[in-house]
Amino acid sequence: MDYQAILEQIYQTVKAGENQGRVATYIPELARVNPDRFGVCLTTIGQQSYAVGDSQERFSIQSIAKVLALCMAYKNIGNTLWKRVGVEPSGTAFNSLVQLESDAGIPRNPLINAGAIVICDALLSYSPNAKRLFLDFVRMVAGNPQLEYSQHIAESEKSVGYRNTALVNFIKSFGNIHHPTEEVLDFYFALCSIEMSCEELSRCFLFLANQGKLPGTETEILNPSQTKRINAIMQTCGFYDEAGEFAYKVGLPGKSGVGGGIVAVRPGRYCVAVWSPRLNPKGNSYRGVALLEALTTTTQDSIF
Amino acid sequence: MDYQAILEQIYQTVKAGENQGRVATYIPELARVNPDRFGVCLTTIGQQSYAVGDSQERFSIQSIAKVLALCMAYKNIGNTLWKRVGVEPSGTAFNSLVQLESDAGIPRNPLINAGAIVICDALLSYSPNAKRLFLDFVRMVAGNPQLEYSQHIAESEKSVGYRNTALVNFIKSFGNIHHPTEEVLDFYFALCSIEMSCEELSRCFLFLANQGKLPGTETEILNPSQTKRINAIMQTCGFYDEAGEFAYKVGLPGKSGVGGGIVAVRPGRYCVAVWSPRLNPKGNSYRGVALLEALTTTTQDSIF
Amino acid sequence: MDYQAILEQIYQTVKAGENQGRVATYIPELARVNPDRFGVCLTTIGQQSYAVGDSQERFSIQSIAKVLALCMAYKNIGNTLWKRVGVEPSGTAFNSLVQLESDAGIPRNPLINAGAIVICDALLSYSPNAKRLFLDFVRMVAGNPQLEYSQHIAESEKSVGYRNTALVNFIKSFGNIHHPTEEVLDFYFALCSIEMSCEELSRCFLFLANQGKLPGTETEILNPSQTKRINAIMQTCGFYDEAGEFAYKVGLPGKSGVGGGIVAVRPGRYCVAVWSPRLNPKGNSYRGVALLEALTTTTQDSIF
Amino acid sequence: MDYQAILEQIYQTVKAGENQGRVATYIPELARVNPDRFGVCLTTIGQQSYAVGDSQERFSIQSIAKVLALCMAYKNIGNTLWKRVGVEPSGTAFNSLVQLESDAGIPRNPLINAGAIVICDALLSYSPNAKRLFLDFVRMVAGNPQLEYSQHIAESEKSVGYRNTALVNFIKSFGNIHHPTEEVLDFYFALCSIEMSCEELSRCFLFLANQGKLPGTETEILNPSQTKRINAIMQTCGFYDEAGEFAYKVGLPGKSGVGGGIVAVRPGRYCVAVWSPRLNPKGNSYRGVALLEALTTTTQDSIF
Repeated sequence: MDYQAILEQIYQTVKAGENQGRVATYIPELARVNPDRFGVCLTTIGQQSYAVGDSQERFSIQSIAKVLALCMAYKNIGNTLWKRVGVEPSGTAFNSLVQLESDAGIPRNPLINAGAIVICDALLSYSPNAKRLFLDFVRMVAGNPQLEYSQHIAESEKSVGYRNTALVNFIKSFGNIHHPTEEVLDFYFALCSIEMSCEELSRCFLFLANQGKLPGTETEILNPSQTKRINAIMQTCGFYDEAGEFAYKVGLPGKSGVGGGIVAVRPGRYCVAVWSPRLNPKGNSYRGVALLEALTTTTQDSIF
Repeated sequence: MDYQAILEQIYQTVKAGENQGRVATYIPELARVNPDRFGVCLTTIGQQSYAVGDSQERFSIQSIAKVLALCMAYKNIGNTLWKRVGVEPSGTAFNSLVQLESDAGIPRNPLINAGAIVICDALLSYSPNAKRLFLDFVRMVAGNPQLEYSQHIAESEKSVGYRNTALVNFIKSFGNIHHPTEEVLDFYFALCSIEMSCEELSRCFLFLANQGKLPGTETEILNPSQTKRINAIMQTCGFYDEAGEFAYKVGLPGKSGVGGGIVAVRPGRYCVAVWSPRLNPKGNSYRGVALLEALTTTTQDSIF
Repeated sequence: MDYQAILEQIYQTVKAGENQGRVATYIPELARVNPDRFGVCLTTIGQQSYAVGDSQERFSIQSIAKVLALCMAYKNIGNTLWKRVGVEPSGTAFNSLVQLESDAGIPRNPLINAGAIVICDALLSYSPNAKRLFLDFVRMVAGNPQLEYSQHIAESEKSVGYRNTALVNFIKSFGNIHHPTEEVLDFYFALCSIEMSCEELSRCFLFLANQGKLPGTETEILNPSQTKRINAIMQTCGFYDEAGEFAYKVGLPGKSGVGGGIVAVRPGRYCVAVWSPRLNPKGNSYRGVALLEALTTTTQDSIF
Repeated sequence: MDYQAILEQIYQTVKAGENQGRVATYIPELARVNPDRFGVCLTTIGQQSYAVGDSQERFSIQSIAKVLALCMAYKNIGNTLWKRVGVEPSGTAFNSLVQLESDAGIPRNPLINAGAIVICDALLSYSPNAKRLFLDFVRMVAGNPQLEYSQHIAESEKSVGYRNTALVNFIKSFGNIHHPTEEVLDFYFALCSIEMSCEELSRCFLFLANQGKLPGTETEILNPSQTKRINAIMQTCGFYDEAGEFAYKVGLPGKSGVGGGIVAVRPGRYCVAVWSPRLNPKGNSYRGVALLEALTTTTQDSIF
């Protein structure tokens, strides 16, 4: 399939349409981004990349990093992880505290804020050096030793992180956080601060399209069964209270971030990353969703 | 792949294990079923069927029929349907009224009771003969003109249908039911009363594995895009508040019923139906889920 | 205290101010009321009445009748009543179904719709003739044998009573309704349909200001302890999610109805009834609350 | 009325009965209290005190102090306070976060944790020295310059204060906390740490039975209208989700604390304080409620 031609055509079509929505402003640093940036990159499991627009420019991947933290935790901790966090869609907004109360501190899934915070805590139990080891893990799966935490993004987020501070303390009041809340949040804000370009992102998540192996090597990050499960969780939980809509329109497992990035995986074929900072009311990139919908409509390769 | 050998092996393994859970007793007629019945049938898009156990015995398909009602409504009414019902997982039990109140009478998705009731109402607007036309539709997609509503099941359900009567009246109080509540419920209880065997079920849902066409013919029930969307809705919403768990463990779009049946679709390959009346605490067949998990683990053909 | 002079002065002041809010329109018959009607009557336990404005005109007392049903049930059934309904403020709107779900069909208190419906069912267990006996009871406490159910109001309410039909069926699904839902609703809509004038209302509720005895007689409707408890329930639960505001501003136990009436009790002194059909956003009479606030501010006789 | 004789009789009766419930253990220091302590003191507005049992022993008044913080804030800030906190009963547990989310950071009332935290923040805006000024205020209304914050109680509470840390951060995420969260919590934990005996408590709250004036002086703490409003708020909101039950059984405005204390006010007559550390499932003193119920049953002086 001529992915380059397809991407160019749908990119132009989406770009010619409206660019609705608003850039996330609750984190001061994110508010400074040019709202009209727009890039996409698709990388096949054969490691061919096809890109259009601002595909080389780095942006804050934010919640997309939660998937990587989950992968590292699942690899190293295994199924006991599911005693502390569920795999069900939440039916509520990404930072809601309501369900935590009725569920006694067990977050519904690892891709909402509450769940990712518990994953951070679990990784800190796995190793006191979890923050450094996580960066090593991301560099390895991305094949890119230069990736870094963005200290000014992390600090910007920390300066207004009242809701996440509420979450970690609330969960700790139920006994489901084992480390000091400051340490857990420091790790959580760091992981959300990683910056990547669409090209880097599409390479970084490629192992999830390749049964868990790093393409071009024999390195197994997750086994095939674990990989399918991560993809299943992305499908049902990757887009907050728009997960059903995304499955319905796009039909690929994926994850969005409030920086305007979305990564999506076509098992057995490719990984695609798109970036456009304006967000729809549910907090997902407006043009990002539109482009991915056009992609699977054109290529007919939704997983359904 | 030798589906017959695989099914026989996993059937014996699951049968040798515990048979936990309880038969649904809230509908008097359902409580009479032998709790140890257990059957499975897988039919490929090439129309080959592979079956083990009680695969020819009919049972009450209950909520599985909601998918067929959705297909008929989507085919005939199209996307305006989504003004009256969402496509998001509900995060709550199948018969909850809570979200309806915060969502002002718009059910979260068409596969919970509230949503299926709205679909019934929408079909009654499409035709006053909707109840008869729906049976014609099911007979057609199943290729089986002898399928019938079970009057004694429908009446048994009606005799205790206080929760569903509450639902339809509650939705009507928001203006999202346009016909008399008795008429809507009469249709709803009828559609839930249909009885099929695993073999019949696996053939009836086969068009969803075949891009919307009836296998062996050129008859298009839904177009490929519509078909993917129905499968996506089943994936995210087909198992109530266990949808994430089912995606995680099994990795196929599907739908369960309180009669103990589950149907699951592998797009491009097959449809599989399983029946075992004991339900887990979330209301899904205990052995049914176990068998399907074993199936996709063995065949490695989850969609993820 | 010169109640006549006080009432006249505050009536003029409130009348000179704005008349905000909207007449209840969800029941067709209520929507026809002249929105500028405004009357008040205060009757002392010495049976002196002081009235201003449209104090002789009958209006639909609606939910105010729930207190009378509660009194009759408490008198005849006693404390076992509290196994089926609580005495806590609900914190939600008068017709909410949300708490019923978490509370498994036990309404929070007898003055929200759900609770009054359970009271009706309890009275039907007390006597199959409950509907007639309740009218006898109201006529007796009001000292007025001419009071009647309004059939056209009851039928008007029934014609749009989807929310209440939802409530009774929902509660029955939890087992907390023992009679056919139609019969319970028929009684419920009847009791809400009673019409009284401010003067009649202030006399009808006077026993609650008189330790439970009908003034001028020795007839005990409730004993002093029971009477205090009814007043306490009115104080904490009589104004839906505005109960705290009413206690704060007015400081008397009372009950409002969507017909625009409010009755309030000053234990040991008087009962006052006010009527003005425009309702504030919480469903309580805008001018009614204003007048009662002015009354207790002037007389300094809030119970607090 | 011979209050001494009455108190002695009901004290013995309650003491002879069961002592159900559990001492609060979530704050380590509270868990060390002797669970069988039991004292009561009633002080009339003529400043006569009547006491039985452990009435001179100090205990941690905990949430009872929230009423004093509210009085100081209402006195100094006035009605603009109600823009930041409501006066409605919450219908949920004392430390619930659920309603804060639907109410966008406006606590339902000033006597639940969330509301008291906002009151602390408001007092910090009134004066940076609020913590010291509040202690001065309590000493003044108690007529007791020796009252102190208990530093070890405050620190004990802080060491496990995850839920309250969650609350203050959650509210701040909505913009309804204006000072640093640490500063607000430091004040909040301090005010909850005050220790008083039943005798001291009954004198401290006596102004609320005396139209706002310190008995024996002409010092007005609150004007009569403000005083009634504080009493009204105690009546509807002073016992968490047992406020209705307390109004129903006891019929006096009051406030409880998890230290096992309860203070109740009979406007125009007296203030009574009782202490017994075992709490019922709603978090209110088991024997305290029983004794107050016996008191108003015997004296017939509930406000209703």
